[in-house]
Amino acid sequence: MNSNLLEHINNPTDLRQLEEAQLPQLAQELRDFIIGVVAVKEGHLGASLGVVELTIAMHYVFETPNDVLIWDVGHQAYGHKILTGRREIFHTNRQLNGISGFPKRSESIYDAFGVGHSSTSISAALGMAIASNLKGDSEKHHIAVIGDASIASGMAFEGLNHAGVTDANLLVILNDNAIGIDPSVGALKKYLTAVKEGKNPKKNNMIKSLNFDYSGPIDGHDIFAVIKELKRLKKVKGPKFLHIITTKGKGLQQAEEDQVKYHAPGKFDASTGEILAKSEENLPPKYQDVFGLTLLDLAKANEKIIGITPAMPSGSSLKFMMEAFPERAFDVGIAEQHAVTLSAGMVTQGMVVFCNIYSTFLQRAYDQVIHDVALQNLPVIFCLDRAGLVGEDGATHHGVFDLAYLRCIPNMIIYSPLNEIDLRNILYTAQLGLNHPIAIRYPRGRGQIVHWERPYEKIEIGTANCLRNGVNIAILSNGTIGNNVTLALAEVDHPENYAHYDFAFVKPLDENLLHFIFSTFEDIITIEDGVIKGGFGTTIVEFAANNGYKSAIKTLGIPDEFLEQGTINELQQYCNIDVKSLTSYLMRFLI
Amino acid sequence: MNSNLLEHINNPTDLRQLEEAQLPQLAQELRDFIIGVVAVKEGHLGASLGVVELTIAMHYVFETPNDVLIWDVGHQAYGHKILTGRREIFHTNRQLNGISGFPKRSESIYDAFGVGHSSTSISAALGMAIASNLKGDSEKHHIAVIGDASIASGMAFEGLNHAGVTDANLLVILNDNAIGIDPSVGALKKYLTAVKEGKNPKKNNMIKSLNFDYSGPIDGHDIFAVIKELKRLKKVKGPKFLHIITTKGKGLQQAEEDQVKYHAPGKFDASTGEILAKSEENLPPKYQDVFGLTLLDLAKANEKIIGITPAMPSGSSLKFMMEAFPERAFDVGIAEQHAVTLSAGMVTQGMVVFCNIYSTFLQRAYDQVIHDVALQNLPVIFCLDRAGLVGEDGATHHGVFDLAYLRCIPNMIIYSPLNEIDLRNILYTAQLGLNHPIAIRYPRGRGQIVHWERPYEKIEIGTANCLRNGVNIAILSNGTIGNNVTLALAEVDHPENYAHYDFAFVKPLDENLLHFIFSTFEDIITIEDGVIKGGFGTTIVEFAANNGYKSAIKTLGIPDEFLEQGTINELQQYCNIDVKSLTSYLMRFLI
Repeated sequence: MNSNLLEHINNPTDLRQLEEAQLPQLAQELRDFIIGVVAVKEGHLGASLGVVELTIAMHYVFETPNDVLIWDVGHQAYGHKILTGRREIFHTNRQLNGISGFPKRSESIYDAFGVGHSSTSISAALGMAIASNLKGDSEKHHIAVIGDASIASGMAFEGLNHAGVTDANLLVILNDNAIGIDPSVGALKKYLTAVKEGKNPKKNNMIKSLNFDYSGPIDGHDIFAVIKELKRLKKVKGPKFLHIITTKGKGLQQAEEDQVKYHAPGKFDASTGEILAKSEENLPPKYQDVFGLTLLDLAKANEKIIGITPAMPSGSSLKFMMEAFPERAFDVGIAEQHAVTLSAGMVTQGMVVFCNIYSTFLQRAYDQVIHDVALQNLPVIFCLDRAGLVGEDGATHHGVFDLAYLRCIPNMIIYSPLNEIDLRNILYTAQLGLNHPIAIRYPRGRGQIVHWERPYEKIEIGTANCLRNGVNIAILSNGTIGNNVTLALAEVDHPENYAHYDFAFVKPLDENLLHFIFSTFEDIITIEDGVIKGGFGTTIVEFAANNGYKSAIKTLGIPDEFLEQGTINELQQYCNIDVKSLTSYLMRFLI
Repeated sequence: MNSNLLEHINNPTDLRQLEEAQLPQLAQELRDFIIGVVAVKEGHLGASLGVVELTIAMHYVFETPNDVLIWDVGHQAYGHKILTGRREIFHTNRQLNGISGFPKRSESIYDAFGVGHSSTSISAALGMAIASNLKGDSEKHHIAVIGDASIASGMAFEGLNHAGVTDANLLVILNDNAIGIDPSVGALKKYLTAVKEGKNPKKNNMIKSLNFDYSGPIDGHDIFAVIKELKRLKKVKGPKFLHIITTKGKGLQQAEEDQVKYHAPGKFDASTGEILAKSEENLPPKYQDVFGLTLLDLAKANEKIIGITPAMPSGSSLKFMMEAFPERAFDVGIAEQHAVTLSAGMVTQGMVVFCNIYSTFLQRAYDQVIHDVALQNLPVIFCLDRAGLVGEDGATHHGVFDLAYLRCIPNMIIYSPLNEIDLRNILYTAQLGLNHPIAIRYPRGRGQIVHWERPYEKIEIGTANCLRNGVNIAILSNGTIGNNVTLALAEVDHPENYAHYDFAFVKPLDENLLHFIFSTFEDIITIEDGVIKGGFGTTIVEFAANNGYKSAIKTLGIPDEFLEQGTINELQQYCNIDVKSLTSYLMRFLI
């Protein structure tokens, strides 16, 4: 017996040379390999460990890449990447110029469809399957692997509802581990749980009611059972559905036991599984915790406050309020559209609703923001977490479009706090009662201020602040990127040349201050951590045009391209908005 | 017996004074009233006729407005409006300063939630029901009435999936008439049809699998049966679901027989039901037909062409291709998210996919445009129908945000044809093969050119055209609003002062021509039929700022507010972009 099978597998063809009896060993090796790399390089752990057997089985049974395989979300595709030619570069996972943390078409022919946001796999695979039918290829297989959290999102339902009336050669595999990033919720999850607990899966089976050939549930870690069933399904034409049960984090005890923490645990000891503790003493807080702890504090005093998250209670730190006030804080699952309109409904009844959605995921509920919230001018409080560059999650997850896509909506207030204190105070201000909906956008990660829990102060809607006076150039920043400006101004020669204004409100604009600035300065620089095209800088450019000001305006921010993964600082460098680039830019500006 | 019950009903309290035995007469009167007004004033007919009995029964059984009633989409709410204090102004339906064609919170306390786009009612009603629970009001009822087309949209599923695990006092009424605007599609519809044909509704019932108390199906035109069941359900706590069967157009023979045509038939003879024929001879075509007939023509020659519509085959005129090539043209139901990602999947397999979505509904698939199409740079061809002001459908339906929300997305091509010929040619050009996704936006209604079916010409991506030379002022228009400019320039004194450029491409911009324009003209006017904030004019303002041009720029378009209903010309007047306003504006400009 070969002592290391994995190192000889450079593609699925190699895999398919193995005897079926060798596959459990390969599964063990693949699991060890994932653990070994992720322990050191960080990344998503639990999801990939849970599908090791399924990954091997699929590439073993199907003729990838001719048969197409789409991983929903893609957190779970590490094993897939390692088996499809990326074993030796897997240590570059999620790094600048390395491989993406998600399947990506430009990276490999085995990545049939790029993913990152949830619930797209069924639609994409169905599109491919219909195309195959039209091309007369009835042998090709089209497989979507989707988790129980993702399948409960509306988009997945739309895909199933269409697929059920086609003759498309589509196999949907439900990877049911009862958890997304946080535990799954909702009625469908309840049904799936009942099935696992012995309920007849055929009774009131939603999948069957959608006209699918349903099979399962089977144990997703029994590789022989999975292979046998996949081989059977390979011969079944039309849309079919396989329900497999897996354990997130399978094979690493701590990861199985604490699935939320081990979703993406950071560095850990590969042999013991122990997470390597980082000292958090005297560090400034995460913006997420500023949100979560402030909301908890406000909710204690204001019983009308409600918190909503679509499937991110841990990531957003809404968990604090959920623990303290479970009846007033809701995880609605991966259902951004529902989350927004649910919030709107609650606000009509006088509730004060904080709807916390990652900036990139609010794209999923854009119509609901316009049609259900802004059009009715309902003061929903949107907390847009992970706005701006998010770092290692890369192109699918950067929250860089929000200023541009929200700014054109009438009635919206848009605010990006400069720091933790401003975030805290705008949360306080919003729950006092606003006349309009507000979007509060703040970044992933830690802020600047260790002692952030100061007495609340009300923020005047639509006011900007002068952070520093100066004589030649006015720098207008929006949000936390303003801290880079402050740091750069500490480095430049002749800082007295530069005035710095914090324009936290992109809408409404502080027009009084802008009139002063444009009357005073001939050179104006705007900076934001969102797309330049249509964002904050554009607001300033529009103001100047509308008012006939002729000052020169330079707009800094994210260029008109999709940015890949990297650390936030690396990506800021790429955009020339990191402290060092800004320092040189500002100094060159005056030469 | 009172010979006219309806004229004494000014609100539901009056209705609740009637004997149950009087209600069939009231139903007849209400039906006649709707037919009488819509025959003359136009509007949506079939949907409201189908729910006359349900409307009366709900207001009879429940204590509206304290019990809240949400009509999904709202096409069907005419009877509701007439019974809730708007009978005497119902003739102003859909007119400027009249009542809205949809329920609207600011119009009546009986309109619990504004609607227009589909599938929002369950989320909104659930939000209200949860709020009632938190306020300790366990007696209040929260009712969502949703059609079988709307319930198959992902957002409705998200609402059901959440509601099923709550104890919210929610009643979802499925108004199952097997049709939206066009006949319903999908696996859920197939299941519902099977139930109507005698299949045991309890077997593989999706609603039951989502933990709802399911009842039905019952005959929605048997008012006594409906009332009896509503009274029973009034006593059931928690989420419950009533499935009723109705006939769209009920009570008007032609409307029952041709449900698509009588969805919104225009003027007709109230006594016979005959639609009053309008002469269409020598009229320019509808843009919809230019799309539909051109696509059909192109599809004959290019077998890779596929057409996709989310539930609008008639409205978009994709029906022509669906009739000729049913295997290559798909109505996927009200599922914009799925439609977009399905298209992306097909494009990965080499298909040439025309995905036709009304501009206002593409808001529903914004994330899919960014994440599944643009990020992967897949050349999906988006045809954005009903872009710009749509007229009588009003605030919920204007397609005015598209330029702003699409322009910030990398890789997108955005094109607004000036006329039918340009629309035809860009469709031709797109199917030749593009390197990027494209959004082609065109308005509702007729164009300008009777003889539009000319030989195809390829359009150079990113080029703008000079329509008229002039010496003092450059007018840059995007899309069909440019025809208003042409008409205005025929009216002004000294037209030689005005140059007119057609910037059909908002992205990529014709920068060469812009450099010439900015080097030549000190005054520039932009005009578009989209929001000024972030739209086409902003693109020009950004270009000027980036290149240091100091010309004065005036940007005309839709102001930063939600515009209500009216004719397109009335709404253009409000925005000062109709021919008359433009003429005076241009003449004042030179004084």
